[in-house]
Amino acid sequence: MREALVAAAFQLFLERGYEQTTVDDIVALAGVGRRSFFRYFPSKEDVVFPDHERCLADMTAFLAASEPDAEPVGRVCDAARVVLRMYAENPTFSVQRYRLTKQVPGLRAYELSVVWRYERALAEYLRARFAARREGTLQADVIAAAVVAAHNNALRSWLRSDGRGDASATVDHALGYVQSAFGAAPPRRADEQPDDVVVVVSRRGAPLWRVVQEIETTLGRTTD
Amino acid sequence: MREALVAAAFQLFLERGYEQTTVDDIVALAGVGRRSFFRYFPSKEDVVFPDHERCLADMTAFLAASEPDAEPVGRVCDAARVVLRMYAENPTFSVQRYRLTKQVPGLRAYELSVVWRYERALAEYLRARFAARREGTLQADVIAAAVVAAHNNALRSWLRSDGRGDASATVDHALGYVQSAFGAAPPRRADEQPDDVVVVVSRRGAPLWRVVQEIETTLGRTTD
Repeated sequence: MREALVAAAFQLFLERGYEQTTVDDIVALAGVGRRSFFRYFPSKEDVVFPDHERCLADMTAFLAASEPDAEPVGRVCDAARVVLRMYAENPTFSVQRYRLTKQVPGLRAYELSVVWRYERALAEYLRARFAARREGTLQADVIAAAVVAAHNNALRSWLRSDGRGDASATVDHALGYVQSAFGAAPPRRADEQPDDVVVVVSRRGAPLWRVVQEIETTLGRTTD
Repeated sequence: MREALVAAAFQLFLERGYEQTTVDDIVALAGVGRRSFFRYFPSKEDVVFPDHERCLADMTAFLAASEPDAEPVGRVCDAARVVLRMYAENPTFSVQRYRLTKQVPGLRAYELSVVWRYERALAEYLRARFAARREGTLQADVIAAAVVAAHNNALRSWLRSDGRGDASATVDHALGYVQSAFGAAPPRRADEQPDDVVVVVSRRGAPLWRVVQEIETTLGRTTD
């Protein structure tokens, strides 16, 4: 029933446009009553994002199940991958919705509020993990926002490619940028020599970003 | 006229609540007609955020006037300070609005869409500056999101303190965290000795964040 309503809604949105489709049109095509629609979806907007509530719950459960000593930045990156999987499970639907959302300002606003809830869930986890830090809430908020922005940048580029290509690899790459900025260690490569030593000499007055750039170059990891 | 409408609207929002106040109530108190209201504000929501359009325009103009070789992360941080000044100019009004926005879900959604527009303006500037980088759009989106999150974390903490305290110093501090993560140099302190040399020795296999932490400690700059 729920799936039938979503399918009917999207068929009509694509044929007639979102604004021109009423809930009555959707239930008529699905062959059910109005009450059935509102049992599943509080409004017409909600049928466009049928999986977000479940996905938010999955992500929150994933974070709650974290080991106490899990590396926190890596953990929120993994939580973002939970969201990605929802999109990647059904590329055709995700691409259709992406196009629809771009066209309808009301849906764009709805999506912003959903994204905000994901970001808050990540930030809450990080705030708890950083509770002992003097600037824990600042760091938590900034890192959560960076993770969401990286995830969305990669997701949108995959959606713009019509869901072709490897969504997972694109997102991994984007999250790697956040991890390099905020201190999570990338997984050790097989060809790394752990006992090798690197010496960096720098003027004390050198700006930190120059020093980091120097080290990145030496270690063979660039963020650019 | 515009200021009188804003003042009347907030007087009624505080007395009766936002939902219970109509545009008719506002124009009656301000002593003007409905058409005058809608000449200035497309909807009741817009009267809650009367300065954002001007502020967005100011911020965009500020970025457009950047020197071509301005350090880009520092520049978007300065652009965020343009927004802060709008809030700090009128602490009482900003605190009232903050409380109202927390209570009314529709206003929260409106605010998210405004914040999104600020974030896009910062990201567009960075995308142009990073056009030659292979991952310029990713980096631009992530840094813009981090700047907005840091700004908002500091702004909210100032608003929660009822607009007491130094908004500017709080935001400077928060933006400093983003600058330290994404490569902008902090301004040189008077007590720094520019010709002093720092030597860091590290295992090649050490995660980058450990190395950076070591350097920060050595240089006497911590992000924590």
